[in-house]
Amino acid sequence: MKCCADLHLFMRCSIFRKGDFLMVVWKNFDELDSYKKLNELGDRVDLPAVMSGASGEKRVAGYSVPMSSGLSYNFASKKVDDEVLGVLSELAAEAQLTDKFAALYNGEMINTGEKRLVLHQLCRGQLGSDVIADGVNKREFYLAQQHSAAAFARKVHSGEITNANGEKFTTVVQIGIGGSDLGPRAVYLALENWARKNDTFRMEARFISNVDPDDAAAVLGAIDIAHTLFILVSKSGTTLETLTNESFVKAALKNAGLDPAKHMVAVTSETSPLAKSSDYLAAFFMDDYIGGRYSSSSAVGGVVLSLAFGPEVFARFLDGAAAEDRLAANPDILKNPAMLDALIGVYERNVLGFASTAVLPYSQAMSRFPAHLQQLDMESNGKSVNRFGEPVSYKTGPAIFGEPGTNGQHSFYQLLHQGTDIIPLQFIGFRRSQAETDVVIQDSTSQQKLCANVAAQIMAFACGKDSEDKNKYFAGGRPSSIIVGEQLTPEAMGAILAHFENKVMFQGFVWNINSFDQEGVQLGKVLAKKVLAHETDGALKAYSDLLGI
Amino acid sequence: MKCCADLHLFMRCSIFRKGDFLMVVWKNFDELDSYKKLNELGDRVDLPAVMSGASGEKRVAGYSVPMSSGLSYNFASKKVDDEVLGVLSELAAEAQLTDKFAALYNGEMINTGEKRLVLHQLCRGQLGSDVIADGVNKREFYLAQQHSAAAFARKVHSGEITNANGEKFTTVVQIGIGGSDLGPRAVYLALENWARKNDTFRMEARFISNVDPDDAAAVLGAIDIAHTLFILVSKSGTTLETLTNESFVKAALKNAGLDPAKHMVAVTSETSPLAKSSDYLAAFFMDDYIGGRYSSSSAVGGVVLSLAFGPEVFARFLDGAAAEDRLAANPDILKNPAMLDALIGVYERNVLGFASTAVLPYSQAMSRFPAHLQQLDMESNGKSVNRFGEPVSYKTGPAIFGEPGTNGQHSFYQLLHQGTDIIPLQFIGFRRSQAETDVVIQDSTSQQKLCANVAAQIMAFACGKDSEDKNKYFAGGRPSSIIVGEQLTPEAMGAILAHFENKVMFQGFVWNINSFDQEGVQLGKVLAKKVLAHETDGALKAYSDLLGI
Repeated sequence: MKCCADLHLFMRCSIFRKGDFLMVVWKNFDELDSYKKLNELGDRVDLPAVMSGASGEKRVAGYSVPMSSGLSYNFASKKVDDEVLGVLSELAAEAQLTDKFAALYNGEMINTGEKRLVLHQLCRGQLGSDVIADGVNKREFYLAQQHSAAAFARKVHSGEITNANGEKFTTVVQIGIGGSDLGPRAVYLALENWARKNDTFRMEARFISNVDPDDAAAVLGAIDIAHTLFILVSKSGTTLETLTNESFVKAALKNAGLDPAKHMVAVTSETSPLAKSSDYLAAFFMDDYIGGRYSSSSAVGGVVLSLAFGPEVFARFLDGAAAEDRLAANPDILKNPAMLDALIGVYERNVLGFASTAVLPYSQAMSRFPAHLQQLDMESNGKSVNRFGEPVSYKTGPAIFGEPGTNGQHSFYQLLHQGTDIIPLQFIGFRRSQAETDVVIQDSTSQQKLCANVAAQIMAFACGKDSEDKNKYFAGGRPSSIIVGEQLTPEAMGAILAHFENKVMFQGFVWNINSFDQEGVQLGKVLAKKVLAHETDGALKAYSDLLGI
Repeated sequence: MKCCADLHLFMRCSIFRKGDFLMVVWKNFDELDSYKKLNELGDRVDLPAVMSGASGEKRVAGYSVPMSSGLSYNFASKKVDDEVLGVLSELAAEAQLTDKFAALYNGEMINTGEKRLVLHQLCRGQLGSDVIADGVNKREFYLAQQHSAAAFARKVHSGEITNANGEKFTTVVQIGIGGSDLGPRAVYLALENWARKNDTFRMEARFISNVDPDDAAAVLGAIDIAHTLFILVSKSGTTLETLTNESFVKAALKNAGLDPAKHMVAVTSETSPLAKSSDYLAAFFMDDYIGGRYSSSSAVGGVVLSLAFGPEVFARFLDGAAAEDRLAANPDILKNPAMLDALIGVYERNVLGFASTAVLPYSQAMSRFPAHLQQLDMESNGKSVNRFGEPVSYKTGPAIFGEPGTNGQHSFYQLLHQGTDIIPLQFIGFRRSQAETDVVIQDSTSQQKLCANVAAQIMAFACGKDSEDKNKYFAGGRPSSIIVGEQLTPEAMGAILAHFENKVMFQGFVWNINSFDQEGVQLGKVLAKKVLAHETDGALKAYSDLLGI
C-alpha cells in the first residue's frame, strides 16, 4: 500500500495499470493549489478589448484546437488569456485528469456510488488495456452487440425479416425514455437529411417516451403499424414509462390483428426479464457499465440507427466518436479539446460565477441535440456531494439549455445580449448544409446567411456596441466558443457527441463528483408509487386529489 | 399637468382615462418602499417544514387561485407565507400593476422605446375603453382580420378555394421565425391530438423557420407540395429568414410546375411590401401594436390555426385567453393568478436570488410550449435598462427552459433535485388526457401514472428526504407552482398562454422595464449584413473565414 497511510486515505486513491503503479488521488477541487491560483486570477480578460483589431484576429487564429473528423474547437471569444490557460493546464495536471480518464477506460470502478465500471468508450474502440469484467472481454461484448444489430438491420433491409405477411418493415419506433430516447433521437434527427441525401436512408424512425398516453397515441396514429418494427429499450426491464408504453403498443398491434412478437425487439441487459422472453423477435444487450445518458454508442443507439440508416452509417458515427476519445487521452490541454472545454467551463462556473450555459447549433438538424446535452450534463454533474458522499462547498454543473440558430436569435438572444446575467454560449456551425439544396437571395445562399449570422453573433456577444441610447447599448463581454466543421456527417456527429461526454466527465473529475450515478431521480419514483397505491397523507394526498388520482 | 412638477418627472407618469384622472408613475423597483420590505423579509419560509403534515395539506387547499377555463394556479410549494403575500400585495399596489395594465389595454403608449401601443389583448376581447389608433378602432380591426381568416379557412375546407387542378389543400405550412413560429407551433402541437379526437382536425400544419436551408428542404421533402398552402408571416415584410425561405418555397413550387401565387397567402402589416402583392392568394393583417412574441392571438396564429382546426377552435382558444385577461385586471393578487405568479417570481429572482426557471408541462402535447415561453419571457424581460434607458441595479428576467414530464424526470431533474443551485419550477398538469386512449398496467392508467408523478415530484422537491448516505440525501426547499386543469382544450391553451403573457407584463412593470421592445437582437443583424457584404476586418473577418463565407 504505497500510496496511503491509512484506510480513509486509501479510499481516496487507487493504484492501477499493472506493473506501472500510477497513483490517482481523488481530492476536492478546493483542496487543490490550482484552485487558489485560478481564484486569484479572477475576472481578468476584457473581451471587448482583446477581441478588437489585430489582437482579436490573432486570437481567432491561435485559440483553436483541432478535433477529429474535420472539426475544430475555437475558444477565441472565451474570457481566457495565456495566463488563465497556464493555470488551467496546472489544474489539469494537479487534478490528474488524464490519469483519471485512463483509469476509467482501463476499467477502474469510477462509478463508486453504484460500484460500476464506466465503459461507454469501449463501444467505439479499445482505448486502453483490455477490460475484463464478469469474465468477459467487454470490448468484444460491445462489438458483438454492434455486429448483431448490424446483421439484424441488414436482414430487415433485405426483406429476410418481414412482418407476418412477408412485407418489408418501413418504419421503426423506439420505445424508451431518458438516455434511451434523447441521445438516439437527437442523432437520428441530426443525420436524417444527410442519409436521405446520401442514399443511406432505410427506414423512418419515431420515438415514444413519455408515460403521457397522448404521446404513444400520437405516434401510433401517424404510422403504418403493420409495417412497423418496435424497439423496446430498458436496461433493467422495469422502467415504468417504457413498460407502460410497451403495453400500449402491444394492445394497438393486437387491435390491428397483428402478433406483437413479430413486431418487437428488445434492447436490455442480459439479466433483465426481457432478455430471453419469447415476446421479442430478437434481443440486443447493454450492461450496467454504460449509463443511459452515455448509451447512444451502445445497442441503445445502435439498433435504431442501424435500422434507420444502415450499419455502415452507425459504424462511421462510432469512428468519429472513437477518434475524439483518443484526443481526450492527451495530457496537453491545447491538444485535448474536451479537456480544455471542461476547464474553461469550470473557470466560468467557479471563478466567474456563471450559472448556466446555452448550446446553440446553427443547424436545424441538431434541433434536439441541446436536449440531449441537457440530460448528459445536468444529470451527470448536478450533484452537491463529492464521490465520497461529502457535501462540496463549490458550485458544480450549470443549467444547460438551447435551441438552433438562427431561430434562437429571434427568441431568447435578447436576454443573452442585454440581460442582467451573463450566460456563456456554445456555438456549433458547419460550412456546408446537409441537403445541399439552396437558393441565392441578395447575392448569398441560405447557408452563407446561416454562417454569417453565427460569426456576427459571436462578435456581437464578445465586443458589444456603445450607444448614446442606452436601450441600444451592448456591454459585450459575453463569452462563447464554437465547434466548426465542414458538414454534419456521421463522423462529425459522433465526434461532437464524444466531445461533450468527455467534457462532462473531466468537469466531474475536477469537481470530484461521481458523474455516472443519478440518485436524485429516485425519490420522485418512490413517492409516485405511493400515490398510485393511495398510501399518502398530508400535502401529497392533497396534490393527488387536485390531480384527480 | 396635475401630476408632475417638471418635464423630467412628466415623462415618468401619465394621466389617462378621460374624466378619471388616474396617475400612473413609473418608478424603478428599488425606489419602492415595498422593495425594502420584501428584502427585509428575506428567505423566511422553510418549505420542508411548512409542507409537512397538516400545514402542508392546508397550504395545498388554501394557496390556490382559480384561473379561467377550469384551471387553477396552486402555489402551495412556493417559498411564501401570508407575510410575504402581504408585502407582495403592497408591492402590487405601490407599483400600480393594475393601473398600468389598464393603461396598456386602454391604449397608452406602453412600448415607449418603439413608441407603440401594446394591444395583443384586443385580439381576444374589449377589455377597457375603445382604442382608436391611426384613425381605426383597433378591436374592430383585429376582429375583422379574425373573421377574414375564418372565412378563408372555411372556403379552403369546403373546396371553394383549391389548387389549380381544383383539388383540396390538405396541408398548411407556416413560413415565419421567432414569434411567427414558436407560439403558433406550440399551440398547433398542443391542440393537434385534441382536434383529431374531437373531429375538428382539418389540415396538417408544418413550420419552416430557420434560414438553414436544411430546414426548408426537410419540410418540402416530407409534404405533398401540390396540395399544400403556404403562409408567409412577416410583419415588416423584410425578415431575412422568412423572405429567404419564401424564395426557397417558390422555387420548389415552380420546379413542381405549380404557380406560387395559387399556393401562398401572406400575414403582414398593411404597410408592408407584401400587403398588396399579387404574389399571394390572400393577405391578412397585423400591426405594430402586437409584438411577434405576443402575436399568437392575432392573424399570425389565427390563419394557420383556423386552417388546421377550423375557425371555431381558434375562437375557443381566444375565448380562453380573454377570460384570463379579465382575471388579470383584478387588483387583488389572490384573485389575479398572473399577477401573483409574477410577484412570486420577482421575490424569487430579487430576494431569493434564483437565476432561472424551469417550465415542466406534464403533457406531451405541450412539448414546444417551454420554447415559446423561453422567447416570451427572455425576449420581454431580458433587459438591463429601465423604460427610460437608465441602467437598473437589480436583476431582471430569468433564464427559462423546460421539457415535458415525465421525460424531464429521466433527464435534467437530477440537477433540479440535488444540484448546487436552486431552480424554481413551473409545473402544468391535466387530469384527463386528450386522446383518452389508455391502458391499465399495475392497476393504474398511463394518465394516472403521469399525474401521480407530478404530485410526487412537487413534494420531493419541496420536502426532500434525509438519508445517512448523503448521496441519497435530498435537501428539499426547491419551490414550485402548478397550473392544473381538467384537460388541455382550446380554452385551456388560450388561458395558459394569456396567463404567461400577463405574468411577464406584470414583472416588466415591477422592474420598470419595457417588455415590448427587443433592441438586443439588432446588433447581430447589422454585423451579419457586414459579413455577407464582406465588409469585415479583424476577428469578425477571421470568424467569417473560419465559417467559409
